[in-house]
Amino acid sequence: MKRSNRLVALTNFFIENPWEHKQLPHFVKLLNTTKASISEDLDIIDSVFQNEGLGYLKRATGAAGGVKYIPEFSRGKSEKFIEELRQMLEDPVRILPGGYLYMSDILGDPKKTREIGRVFASAFSMLEIDVVVTVATKGIPLAYAVASFLNVPVVIVRRDPKVTEGSSVSINYVSGSSRRIQSMVLPKRSLQEGANVCIIDDFMKAGGTITGMINLLAEFNANVKAIGVLAEADDEEEERVVEDYTSLVKISNVDIKQKHIEVNSGNFSTGG
Amino acid sequence: MKRSNRLVALTNFFIENPWEHKQLPHFVKLLNTTKASISEDLDIIDSVFQNEGLGYLKRATGAAGGVKYIPEFSRGKSEKFIEELRQMLEDPVRILPGGYLYMSDILGDPKKTREIGRVFASAFSMLEIDVVVTVATKGIPLAYAVASFLNVPVVIVRRDPKVTEGSSVSINYVSGSSRRIQSMVLPKRSLQEGANVCIIDDFMKAGGTITGMINLLAEFNANVKAIGVLAEADDEEEERVVEDYTSLVKISNVDIKQKHIEVNSGNFSTGG
Repeated sequence: MKRSNRLVALTNFFIENPWEHKQLPHFVKLLNTTKASISEDLDIIDSVFQNEGLGYLKRATGAAGGVKYIPEFSRGKSEKFIEELRQMLEDPVRILPGGYLYMSDILGDPKKTREIGRVFASAFSMLEIDVVVTVATKGIPLAYAVASFLNVPVVIVRRDPKVTEGSSVSINYVSGSSRRIQSMVLPKRSLQEGANVCIIDDFMKAGGTITGMINLLAEFNANVKAIGVLAEADDEEEERVVEDYTSLVKISNVDIKQKHIEVNSGNFSTGG
Repeated sequence: MKRSNRLVALTNFFIENPWEHKQLPHFVKLLNTTKASISEDLDIIDSVFQNEGLGYLKRATGAAGGVKYIPEFSRGKSEKFIEELRQMLEDPVRILPGGYLYMSDILGDPKKTREIGRVFASAFSMLEIDVVVTVATKGIPLAYAVASFLNVPVVIVRRDPKVTEGSSVSINYVSGSSRRIQSMVLPKRSLQEGANVCIIDDFMKAGGTITGMINLLAEFNANVKAIGVLAEADDEEEERVVEDYTSLVKISNVDIKQKHIEVNSGNFSTGG
């Protein structure tokens, strides 16, 4: 295959298969060329990916040598995207009765959820995550987006046990906002003991739901390596029970009477 | 930018942005080259995409001229993938109490859900779908995968109204398997009147849930252009209430005593 055709085929492979380790002979055979040519192709792809802020190709030499694509948004690209999100969320038409904020349009847009996932996956890429965990329902698209960039599976904690998933572990927890006792359940079969997990959710107020997930995951001896939330609410009345997390935006003030919303950058950008 | 670098950048753009129409001058400026060179680049990318069964670049000449990537799995690629799925599902360790089948590993794998989405999106690509609709919870990753290839948003029908989504429309329906009256709800704000929709779900038995969705969507005057289910159950005791749908696999027989599962191709492959 000619270089120009190989570059298209290889670029497609890397974008579709992040973190998948392949040895060079695999591509030599597939694309009917030489190792030297593939090596030059990889140099070109790596340099474009790096220039565009899309990550890089990680190469290893020797017997176990090969290549994999590490998709890492550059810091600048992540912050530019977060700033766009922040501005979108400040639109006063988003105010709902009760001071809630309408976000379903953003969470329903596969391109936006993919970009949100890319930002978290870039931030967590060196943590050796084995599985992404979320709780039904709104965090699900974000969890899949993160997982697709980390090349790991997703496990969904449910609030209602489903008969179709076999035996399961459940816990009770107190929801921060409603102060009610709720339950969470995870099928035994869905998570291996001692896995490195990353928790993803769309929204965090006091953090009761995420604390519930942490407690449930402790039953599986999981290591919670990272927690990512799209939006946190800045609520001075309630003490936050989760401390170590990454948020993209912080909803600081929703003034229903004045129809004004104040959205700031989350601790992803401020580093706090 | 040199041709080899342009090919990497353009391939990445098309894979990440299916169905997005761009005029050639956009790329001429972005990649600092000439219209003739971009045109040749597009020929190369189009030919590789077609040879690999990944779809094609659709080009239009004249004042509104430009290019967009139509991601269409070739028939052969789709059927090969469905056959792999079928074999995975026949593994007897999947049998759960009650004759249910464990599928959460497949639905939890972002690569598999993406491929399932690609198969449906390829089959429905000419139907001018405006939005993909699913019902919480298990169909959600499939719906996002289909939507990402069609470049349209996802709307999630819920079984419980959430206070954070504003006013909503709800209906009651009879679940085919449990014969109980259940309800479904969709926020008013989430779907425009008269939209062309595609319904996606993971599993269909008699079709009660999908009929519920059809009835709910009728309240929004939506046109249901396609219905896609990953697996249908072949149940001779119950009459199917939904007729016009596309299934990838058909679970024909789950024999708990003999630990045997029979999974056949769905009507995607058999054309019925």
